Amino acid sequence: MRAVRHRFFVQDAGAPGATVVLSADESAHATRVLRLRPGAAIGVFDGRGREFAGVVAAVNDQVAVRIDAEVAAVPEPTVAITLAHAVLKGDKMDAVVRDAVMLGAAAIRPIVARRSETSVAALERGHRIERWRRVAVASAKQCGRSVVPDVLDILDFAPSAAWFDAAGLPAPRLVLAEPEAERLRPMPPARIEPPGGGRATLVVGPEGGWAPEEIQALESSCAAVTLGPRTLRADAAAVVAMAALFAVWGVE
Amino acid sequence: MRAVRHRFFVQDAGAPGATVVLSADESAHATRVLRLRPGAAIGVFDGRGREFAGVVAAVNDQVAVRIDAEVAAVPEPTVAITLAHAVLKGDKMDAVVRDAVMLGAAAIRPIVARRSETSVAALERGHRIERWRRVAVASAKQCGRSVVPDVLDILDFAPSAAWFDAAGLPAPRLVLAEPEAERLRPMPPARIEPPGGGRATLVVGPEGGWAPEEIQALESSCAAVTLGPRTLRADAAAVVAMAALFAVWGVE
Repeated sequence: MRAVRHRFFVQDAGAPGATVVLSADESAHATRVLRLRPGAAIGVFDGRGREFAGVVAAVNDQVAVRIDAEVAAVPEPTVAITLAHAVLKGDKMDAVVRDAVMLGAAAIRPIVARRSETSVAALERGHRIERWRRVAVASAKQCGRSVVPDVLDILDFAPSAAWFDAAGLPAPRLVLAEPEAERLRPMPPARIEPPGGGRATLVVGPEGGWAPEEIQALESSCAAVTLGPRTLRADAAAVVAMAALFAVWGVE
Repeated sequence: MRAVRHRFFVQDAGAPGATVVLSADESAHATRVLRLRPGAAIGVFDGRGREFAGVVAAVNDQVAVRIDAEVAAVPEPTVAITLAHAVLKGDKMDAVVRDAVMLGAAAIRPIVARRSETSVAALERGHRIERWRRVAVASAKQCGRSVVPDVLDILDFAPSAAWFDAAGLPAPRLVLAEPEAERLRPMPPARIEPPGGGRATLVVGPEGGWAPEEIQALESSCAAVTLGPRTLRADAAAVVAMAALFAVWGVE
C-alpha cells in the first residue's frame, strides 16, 4: 500500500496556476472528514485522465484549491471493458460499481433483466444512478485512478446484437455463465482471446439468473465465460471475472 | 445461478442410512431462517469433501436429518492455495475469509504483521478465530463447496523460509506487492508459473503494508505478484489475486 496524498475530483480542473472550487461533496470530504487546512498538499484529478498536484487555498463553505503541476496519472487498462450488469437487490450494486471502478472498468451500464426485481422507473425514482455515480467518484479517489468511469443510464435489457449496438456496448461481448449453461457453451478465461480492438463488453446477470428467452438471445450475441464450479455471490461475480480476464490477457 | 437445495454442514455425516443431528447453529438456520419442516429435502456436506442428499427427519430443539445417497461434490481447485493473510482492521477479515472460501482457498492462515494494528492475544480474547471459522462454514454453504477450508491458528509473522515451513505454508510462496515494490521485483500473474506440486501459498499484507524488515525477509522467501497500478482495497486484494492466478493457471 503506497502512501497516497488525499485526492479530489474536479470536473474542470483547468491548468496549472488556476484556482478551482471543490464541489459540495468534495468540500465536505476535505473539511469534515479529513479536516484539511489552507496550505495542505492534495491531488486533483479531472475524471478524464488528468492528474494534478494542488494546494488548499481557502476553506469556507466550499474549498478553493490552487492547481499546481500536472503529474503522471495511473495508467488505464489497455483493454477498455464496459460492464453491463443487471441491477441487483438492495444496495449490492454499490459494491459492484465500487469494485468495477477499482478493477479498471471503462464504463458501467446498469441493465434491468427479466429477473431483476425492479424497473427502470423505480430505479430512477430512487435516484440510484446519481448514487452509483457518487460511488464511482469515491472509488476512483480511493484506487488512484484519474478516470471516473461513466455510469451510463439504466436500460431495459433486450438481448440481441442490435440492442448491444444501440446501447453502446462494444464487441466482443462476453457473458458470465455457470459451467452447466450448456446452450451458452461457457469457456474458462484462459480460452478467451484478448480483444483485438482494445475494447470489450462483460455482461453479468441478476441473482435469479437469465430467463430462457434471454439465454436464447445471449447465445447469438455473446461468447460465454465461466469462472468454475463454485457459486459466486452475485455482487462478487463481476470483480472476479474482470480480475481473471485482465490476468489472462496480460492487462494491468 | 443454479437452483441450489439448502445445504447443511455436518462434521460427522456418517453414511447413507444414518440419522444425524445438526449443530445448534445449523439447526437455527434450518428452523428460524429457512423454516424447514420434517420431510424437506436438503443437502448435507461433511466439510472434508463428501456431499449427501438428506431429508429433515425431526425438528425439535435441534434438527435431525436422515442421510440418503452420497452425491457428487463440487470439484476442488487443482491447485491448493493456502492464504496467509495479515489481520485487517475491524471486521474486514470476515470478508477476506468469506471470499477466499468462495474462490476455492484450501486453507487460511491469519497472521499478525508488524503493521497489523492488533496482537494474537487481543484476537484470541475477541474469539476472532471462532468467528472466522463460522464465516468459512457459511461461505462453503453458499458457494456449494463440500470442503470447509481450515482457518488455522493466528501466528505472528516472522518472515523467513524457516517460519513458512514451521507455519505449514507450502512452497512456492507468492507475496502480493505494489508494482513499485522494487526490492521484491513483482511480476504480473501471467508470468507466474503454475505450481508443479499442486500447492502454493499466497501472502497478503495489512492495510499499512509491510515493514522494511519484513520486505527484506519476504524478498528471500517469496516470489512477488502485482495486480497492476490501481490501489486495491485491503479486503479485496486476496480475492482479486486468487481470481487472477487461478485464471492464468487454468484452475477452475
